[in-house]
Order: sequence, then C-alpha cells, then structure tokens
Amino acid sequence: MTLENLQSLLLPQIETSLIDFFNSLDFGASPELGQILRYHMGWEADASGNMPRGKRLRPLITLLATGGFNEYPPASMPAAIAVELLHNFTLIHDDIEDQSPLRHGRPTLWQRYGTAQAVNAGDALFSIAQLSMLNLAETSSQVVVLDALQEFNRSYLHLAQGQYLDISFEDKTDVAVSTYLEMVAGKTGALIALAASLGARITGQTLTEYHKLAEYGHYLGLAFQIQDDILGIWGDPKITGKSAASDILTRKKSLPNLIGLAECPEFRSLWKKETLADEEVLKMANLLENCGVREKVNQQSEELTQLSLQSLETVFPKKNDYSAALSELAGSLLSRDY
Amino acid sequence: MTLENLQSLLLPQIETSLIDFFNSLDFGASPELGQILRYHMGWEADASGNMPRGKRLRPLITLLATGGFNEYPPASMPAAIAVELLHNFTLIHDDIEDQSPLRHGRPTLWQRYGTAQAVNAGDALFSIAQLSMLNLAETSSQVVVLDALQEFNRSYLHLAQGQYLDISFEDKTDVAVSTYLEMVAGKTGALIALAASLGARITGQTLTEYHKLAEYGHYLGLAFQIQDDILGIWGDPKITGKSAASDILTRKKSLPNLIGLAECPEFRSLWKKETLADEEVLKMANLLENCGVREKVNQQSEELTQLSLQSLETVFPKKNDYSAALSELAGSLLSRDY
Repeated sequence: MTLENLQSLLLPQIETSLIDFFNSLDFGASPELGQILRYHMGWEADASGNMPRGKRLRPLITLLATGGFNEYPPASMPAAIAVELLHNFTLIHDDIEDQSPLRHGRPTLWQRYGTAQAVNAGDALFSIAQLSMLNLAETSSQVVVLDALQEFNRSYLHLAQGQYLDISFEDKTDVAVSTYLEMVAGKTGALIALAASLGARITGQTLTEYHKLAEYGHYLGLAFQIQDDILGIWGDPKITGKSAASDILTRKKSLPNLIGLAECPEFRSLWKKETLADEEVLKMANLLENCGVREKVNQQSEELTQLSLQSLETVFPKKNDYSAALSELAGSLLSRDY
Repeated sequence: MTLENLQSLLLPQIETSLIDFFNSLDFGASPELGQILRYHMGWEADASGNMPRGKRLRPLITLLATGGFNEYPPASMPAAIAVELLHNFTLIHDDIEDQSPLRHGRPTLWQRYGTAQAVNAGDALFSIAQLSMLNLAETSSQVVVLDALQEFNRSYLHLAQGQYLDISFEDKTDVAVSTYLEMVAGKTGALIALAASLGARITGQTLTEYHKLAEYGHYLGLAFQIQDDILGIWGDPKITGKSAASDILTRKKSLPNLIGLAECPEFRSLWKKETLADEEVLKMANLLENCGVREKVNQQSEELTQLSLQSLETVFPKKNDYSAALSELAGSLLSRDY
C-alpha cells in the first residue's frame, strides 16, 4: 500500500476516534464550551456550511510509525489523537498570540468568541489531550503510559520555548539564524518528533529506535517549516493564496529573510524602509536569489529531509508499507507547492 | 500541633519543593520563559524588592489530608505542588481573561510581558504541573499516579467549565443563583476538592474516603467564595483594601447581588442606573441588608462550612493533629475579614 492508500484507510479512523472521544466527554453545566471546541476542530459547520479541518498529519505519523514496527496501527490511537488535540490547543492560542483573524478561511476562536473564551477553550483542550493520553492505559502497560506522558509534556514544554522565541522576535531587529532554528525546533519540530517517537514508545522498542524516530520528526519539522518559508517568498500566489513574496511584504523573520539580512547589504537597506512598493518587494525577492539565498535555503531544506530519511532508515532497515509511507511523507512535504 | 504549628512546619517545605522542582527544569534556549514564571510565583523581586506569594492553601490541604491518614505528609509533595502550579497557571490566564492589571500589588504577567507571552507562559506552567504530577511515580505505585492524573485533568476540565460560565456572565443581565453556584463549584471548588482528595488517592484509601474528602474541598471552596462575596460588599475597606461595597460599585455578579436582583425590587432598579453615586452604593448595600440578603448569604456560607466539616468527620471519625487542622482551616476561612 502506498502513502495515499494508507491515508485513505487511516484518516477516517483518526477522525472517528477524535469525534468518539469528544462525545465521551462531559462538559457539565457548560455544553457551549464543547461547542466552541467542535467549531475549532472543524465538526461544526459555519453559516456557509463549511467544516474545514487540519491535515491530521501528526496522528497519521504516530499510526504509521506503529505499523512500521509490525504492530496494529490503531493500538496507538489514544496517543495519536492526543497529539492532534495538543496541536489544536496550540493553534487556538497561537491565533490569539499572533492576532490572526482567520484559520482555514474561517474566523479564529478569539475572533468569534472573544479572547477570554478562546484562552479558556484552548486550556480545556490541553487537559482533554492529557485525558486522551491516559486512555492509552486501556491497551498499553502502565509504565508505557507514564513514559509517554512524560514525553508528551516535555515535548510541549519544548514547543512553549520555541513559542517564547517566536513572540520575542517581534520586538527584535536582528535574529541570528541559529536562534531562528531553535525556535522552529520547538514550535514545529517538537510535536512532529513526539508524534513519531510515540510509535516506538508504545510498541516497546529500544531507546535507540525511540530517539531515531524523534530525530526523523525533528528534522522533518525543520524541513517542513523551511519549505514554508521558501513558499512564503517564491510560492505561486495562485496556489498559495497569498500575495507574491508575502513574507517580504510582512517583514516576517523567516529563514530566507534572516540570511538575506545577514549576507545581502542591498536587501538589508531596502528592509529598513518604512513601506515597500510592490516592485520593491519583487526586487528584494530577486536580490535574495542573486545573493544565493534561495539556493542556500533550498539546499538546507533538502539536507534536513535527507537527515530525516537517514534517521528513519536506521529504525527501519527493512521497509514495510508503513515505514515506506513515512519516507514518502517526508518527500511529499518537501516537494509541495502550497 | 495546631493548624498554625503545622503551617509553620509545612509551608516552608512546600516552598522549597516548588523551587527545587523548578530548578530541575530545563528551559533550553528560552531561560527567560523560566524567569517570567519565577516572577509570577513570587521568587523574583520587582524593582521595589517585593516578592509577594500566594497562600499555598491547596498544597497545604493535600499534605494535611495525607497526614490525616497517618501517612508521612511529604509523600504527597509532588502532587501537592502540582496542584499549586496548576492553580497558578489558572491565575495567569484568569488575569488575561479579566484584564486585571495587578496581583498581590504587582503588575500581572500580561501587563508586564504582553498578552502573547503571558498566554504562552501560562501554557508552559500547565505542562510543568503535569510533570510534577508524574514525579509522584518515584514514591507511589503506577496505578495511583495514573488515577491521580485522571482526577487532576478532570478537575481542571471542571474548572474550565466554571470559567466558561464566569466569562459568559459578563454579557448577561440575569444570572440564576443556581448557575452562579455551578460557576463557583468549577472555578473555586474543583481544585480545592482535588487538593483534598489527592491525599486519599495517594495513601490508598477507599473510594468513599476519596469522595468524602472531595466533598470537603468542594463545600469549602463554595463557602470560601461566598465569604469573599460577603466581604466584597460588607468588608471593612481598611482591611480589604477595596472601596466600600466595591462589588456593588463594579456591578459584580456575586451571590448577594444576584439574590438582591431577584428578591429586592428597589435594589434592582438602582442596579440598572448607568452610574452610581457613593451614597447610592451605600444605599444599595443597606437595601440588601433590609431585604434579608445579608442574613441569607451568611447562613448559606455557614451551612456550606457545616457540610464541609461533616464530610471531613465521616473520613476522620478519630481526629489526629492533621485532620483537626483541616477542620480548623475550614473555620478560619469562614471567619476571615480580609
């Protein structure tokens, strides 16, 4: 089975498990709190009947890693959906922290219900994610559940460190590339590493396999974010839905911009201008290209994907459908154009 | 030993355990995130050298309940400080939700570091509280730790339901007394019930003892909040540090105000006025008294304290110093004037 086949098989199971778990929760005197979260998860249609959802990438990775060890993938389901719930909690708060008005083309929670209710709903989802992890005790040994919970919360603390850095970048003029990568390692890498390594933890593999799968996720997360950064400047506006070179226009501290600021004086002096005309934005994108930044960043993304695949091969020297799908996934995230 | 003796003995141990646990954490590339949390916990002096801290009431209750079962109180320390950390996480977010500028006379986190960093710091503290719970595995059996974690997260979800109600009250003109009590049961009762019942869970008592201790905390939390509501109207401004009848001035949906709105027409018509002169505020306080609201609320607070003490007696029919201290604590919270 290819990645596509496995996705068709597993994604509906993931969605059903998420919904079933949600239905098992008791919101007591505040059923509306449950409704707010259902809206965020994409199970509640808006006025135009839309129910947009995330890709459910993280639980897919947990199930594929479990299958890679020749175990029945749904054995990890409570942990897989816990990571997805944790991820969604971070999105709710991230939207507040960034003041983002839209997600999947719909109003974000703080826009729709106010900041106070959105902060509280995110907090509730964090505890709900922990409760899903605890459900793992139905199929896994107690020591596995406790170890997995340690990793779950340590990974989140790593994410919060990345988030701290990301917020602090707002007020900074200079951000070192190494600090940027630390930020991404937390903000994007930590939960993908967690998602992958839980597959090893739950199926009782050795620490080496556990660490190598975490590495796979870590490098994959970094490559994924850098690919995002590339698309933020050179992505096709018709496909990304954003304006051309939008990350230059918004002065986002993304990897190409940070390298450009450090290595490309002409780019740096235009960056300092109060406002940028459309043709200046395009000129800056060309400057990055001429200074070799585009090539450098492309290379970095490819190297990180290679590191990710190497870690994966150490864990699964003999491929099966599931581990092959994890490998295909890394390639597909890199070659995406949206 | 009296409650006062036990407080002198246990509170320094609680503080040391909190600080030691914090020092064991790795904040990686973001040590500043740790500093933000240290400031909130009261371990970081502000410009004027102040380090105000909370009462550490919840961990004290956990340790006293543990001692009540003739077990060594610090055996519950990881859980006791986890509840205190959880409580503090809720305070950080509560201050954001209420837009409160001050806590213990110092700027709140969102005032000092901005809303984005304060939301994130609170989230980090939530995961840190979970990690402290997991440390319980060093001294307790795995099944106890898993059960305690279930209760920890279920209690938080109950708190979030109360918080949902509290925020929703802002936009409502009428709030039923029963809904108000549901709110308090979550917002104040849930964590005190958790703090008490963890003492039974960790020392391996029966479900009855566990539930009765949760009841003790639940009723105590309700009585505590209602006492707060009484002080918000009839407290001595010189002692509370607030203006006279401040909860009337700010139109707080507190219990006396809600009963007054339902049962005292003259109070209700003044409540609807756009602004209130000082003498109108005092008149409204007198109206509550004349309508019998003050007496009714006092009675309710006393009844709840009695229920709390009855639950406690079921658990500890033969008193020892610790269970006597839990009983004394309930009485002292009720008779406080600040």
